[in-house]
Amino acid sequence: MKQFCILILFIFSLQVSAQSDAETIKTIYSISLTNGKSYEWLNHLSNTIGPRLSGSFGAEQAVKYTKEELEKLGLDKVWLQSVMVPKWVRGLPEFAYIETEPGQTTHVNICALGGSVETPNGGVRAQVVEVKGIDELKALGKEKVKGKIVFFNRPMQADLIDTFEAYGGCADQRYAGAYEAGKLGAVGVIVRSLNLRLDDFPHTGSMTYGDLPVSQRIPSAAISTNHAELLSTMLALNPSINFFFKQNCQQLADVESFNVIGEITGTEFPDEYIVVGGHLDSWDLGDGSHDDGAGVVQSMDVLRLLKESGIKPKRSIRVVLFMNEENGLRGGKKYAEVAKSKGENHIFALESDSGGFTPRGFSFDSSDAMFEKVLGWKELFKPYLIHYFEKGGSGADIGPLKSDGIVLAGLKPDSQRYFDHHHAATDTFDAVNKRELELGAAAMASLVYLFDTYGTSVEMINKTFKN
Amino acid sequence: MKQFCILILFIFSLQVSAQSDAETIKTIYSISLTNGKSYEWLNHLSNTIGPRLSGSFGAEQAVKYTKEELEKLGLDKVWLQSVMVPKWVRGLPEFAYIETEPGQTTHVNICALGGSVETPNGGVRAQVVEVKGIDELKALGKEKVKGKIVFFNRPMQADLIDTFEAYGGCADQRYAGAYEAGKLGAVGVIVRSLNLRLDDFPHTGSMTYGDLPVSQRIPSAAISTNHAELLSTMLALNPSINFFFKQNCQQLADVESFNVIGEITGTEFPDEYIVVGGHLDSWDLGDGSHDDGAGVVQSMDVLRLLKESGIKPKRSIRVVLFMNEENGLRGGKKYAEVAKSKGENHIFALESDSGGFTPRGFSFDSSDAMFEKVLGWKELFKPYLIHYFEKGGSGADIGPLKSDGIVLAGLKPDSQRYFDHHHAATDTFDAVNKRELELGAAAMASLVYLFDTYGTSVEMINKTFKN
Repeated sequence: MKQFCILILFIFSLQVSAQSDAETIKTIYSISLTNGKSYEWLNHLSNTIGPRLSGSFGAEQAVKYTKEELEKLGLDKVWLQSVMVPKWVRGLPEFAYIETEPGQTTHVNICALGGSVETPNGGVRAQVVEVKGIDELKALGKEKVKGKIVFFNRPMQADLIDTFEAYGGCADQRYAGAYEAGKLGAVGVIVRSLNLRLDDFPHTGSMTYGDLPVSQRIPSAAISTNHAELLSTMLALNPSINFFFKQNCQQLADVESFNVIGEITGTEFPDEYIVVGGHLDSWDLGDGSHDDGAGVVQSMDVLRLLKESGIKPKRSIRVVLFMNEENGLRGGKKYAEVAKSKGENHIFALESDSGGFTPRGFSFDSSDAMFEKVLGWKELFKPYLIHYFEKGGSGADIGPLKSDGIVLAGLKPDSQRYFDHHHAATDTFDAVNKRELELGAAAMASLVYLFDTYGTSVEMINKTFKN
Repeated sequence: MKQFCILILFIFSLQVSAQSDAETIKTIYSISLTNGKSYEWLNHLSNTIGPRLSGSFGAEQAVKYTKEELEKLGLDKVWLQSVMVPKWVRGLPEFAYIETEPGQTTHVNICALGGSVETPNGGVRAQVVEVKGIDELKALGKEKVKGKIVFFNRPMQADLIDTFEAYGGCADQRYAGAYEAGKLGAVGVIVRSLNLRLDDFPHTGSMTYGDLPVSQRIPSAAISTNHAELLSTMLALNPSINFFFKQNCQQLADVESFNVIGEITGTEFPDEYIVVGGHLDSWDLGDGSHDDGAGVVQSMDVLRLLKESGIKPKRSIRVVLFMNEENGLRGGKKYAEVAKSKGENHIFALESDSGGFTPRGFSFDSSDAMFEKVLGWKELFKPYLIHYFEKGGSGADIGPLKSDGIVLAGLKPDSQRYFDHHHAATDTFDAVNKRELELGAAAMASLVYLFDTYGTSVEMINKTFKN
């Protein structure tokens, strides 16, 4: 009889807990959708401040603005964390054309890749060798590549449903194309923009020269998908046409910048930390609304939504706005380094860096046991059309926090439109929908609330797991 | 032992069947995403033909164009089904202002509701009574309403996740507002646009006068959400301000138009019909890309995708492009009437009329047993991030087909952005994303394939149900 009573009490307490979680999540969503702040913050970040490449005036302004806004929220602490970041500048607008015969030119849209060297003053003019990837380039060998411009033209695979998968399948051309082509004596690299649709906008992004000596570092640029198609067609008609491009970007000395951090200190376990964040820097062509203004303002709103919902977190919840995700990851590395040196016990970190579109769910980087526990929460999100709970990657900035004890997670928004905007002049405020942004912030706050409530210890896994 | 063998064979056949369904669906998706036609068709329908209100030149052109395009697909039959439709014309652009003092006016954006009468030549100028809904209007009674313009200003509820639910909670103001206000002696009706965001675009839509005598039929218009807020604020400051509006829309005599129908005749059960469709007519302010150009081209592509995937349907599959969903539903009624008179056995009908956004799933109007069967297919859609399989409504055009024997279903795309565009000048081609549209067509074709393969008879339910 006694055991029966305990069972009844246990079931009852589970029900009370489940009901109250559902109600809390409903409150969070309701506040986000009727009284959210993320869209207003994004408006300022995008339309008043604009692009925020590391080391730029925009990045500096963004640090100042978000710190001030966090201070208005009445958090327990708000501070800046100093970090040295690379400073790369685009310089004058790039210029490029295809030359079918001497004097007969067709202008094409390009942009320098982030980290690229400039061209000589007179630009680079050479014949073009088109390849679908690095393996094909290597197979050609030095003889066929020397003195040429290498044109990487492998399109993103359209029949993959998750466009990030299609991106992952092509990003090596952009990142390592100039490194590989430089080793073979090429004089420049042109890469098809990582964009699924055909349009006129070149998409920048980071690239590396690895350990190449300076003499072998060749300029590298992205070309719009429409013009990649055009160039490929022209090459098919006449393989000996020339390509010309000119860019005067520069890598300057590192400068000081900052991660912006705000904290609600936990009431029961202040030494257990939960991080929610996005990256404050952006590329310089658009205003970085989706990448990653959205993640920044959603993360800020998570702490505000918890406060507005009357939640007093047991654990310390931090919003971290990381600097320099795009071309160095210095902010993410710095945050993890400091956390480690202070022996801070981080139990959960969540990043939003996949755009501000309708949230579909989360990917989790955790132990199987922990993931099983998290699956038990999935039902709580069903009313909000959140369905994607899968094991997978999280976010670049929180990656350096990875250890056995921590659960890392990434918000997974609908990905279909993302690469129309990613790293291009089309990444602008008008492409973000207010409700979609707010739904993401609410989903994130709800997950943070659950991790704060139940924690991640083995006992908690056993205690609260229900399936 | 014999029973055991049968069991093994049964399980084996289920697996073979499941595998082959998964492969077929993969093929359908792949063709849609790499070689879809829906976006190209929508481009023509939206940008070359434009708006397609019943009885307009655009509607006529759309009938001609889609019939020709279906004929190119090599279907077994393509034909037009004659139907008489109402013809309402907007006339000159509407004009409206708020008058705080004589001569002191603020221009506001309105549009006549579809089916509304015109104002007198000199327009309507009157004081305004603001209400949140029809009940509040009725409570005011004749005395407070007579001679006034009634301003219905109940906003869509922002914290509902499915925006169609928020729409459903407000559409009565637009549909029946003039009917109710007219009975109480009002001289005009202004309705807050059914749009969740604050912007400058008025959204039209259908309305009714019911059985009101002509003398009580008062003009009715929608006002943009920004201007609804403005009007409400001004009324709070001074309840005696005047509102002026002028519109010269007209209801003309009915004209002949057509449903456009194409068919692949079934190889095994040609007398069992499956319908997939959308509506060819649109409102006149935008180009009707989301409502319902998307549904039209997706439905057309369903038949093409089945053919391109090498599927020879057992049952007869029809694409039906319905005329006059927006202001009469004459096409949907006519199709059902003819089907009934011919004794055609329709087993499944699927409509896409909720926008061309990323598909999230389907809602099913069916028996519980049938729905249980359908749930067994849900797993097949998981790789495509289709997760929403719920009982619910289907589509207005296929509604008249409802009977005990038929399963009705509606495609459920992501709804967050839909009402930014619905029935307004913002419903244009640029708001449709190619991949999202193609994913919808593929999801629809996959569901049609499954219904064609397994049918809906009781035996089939028992045979193929697995859960």
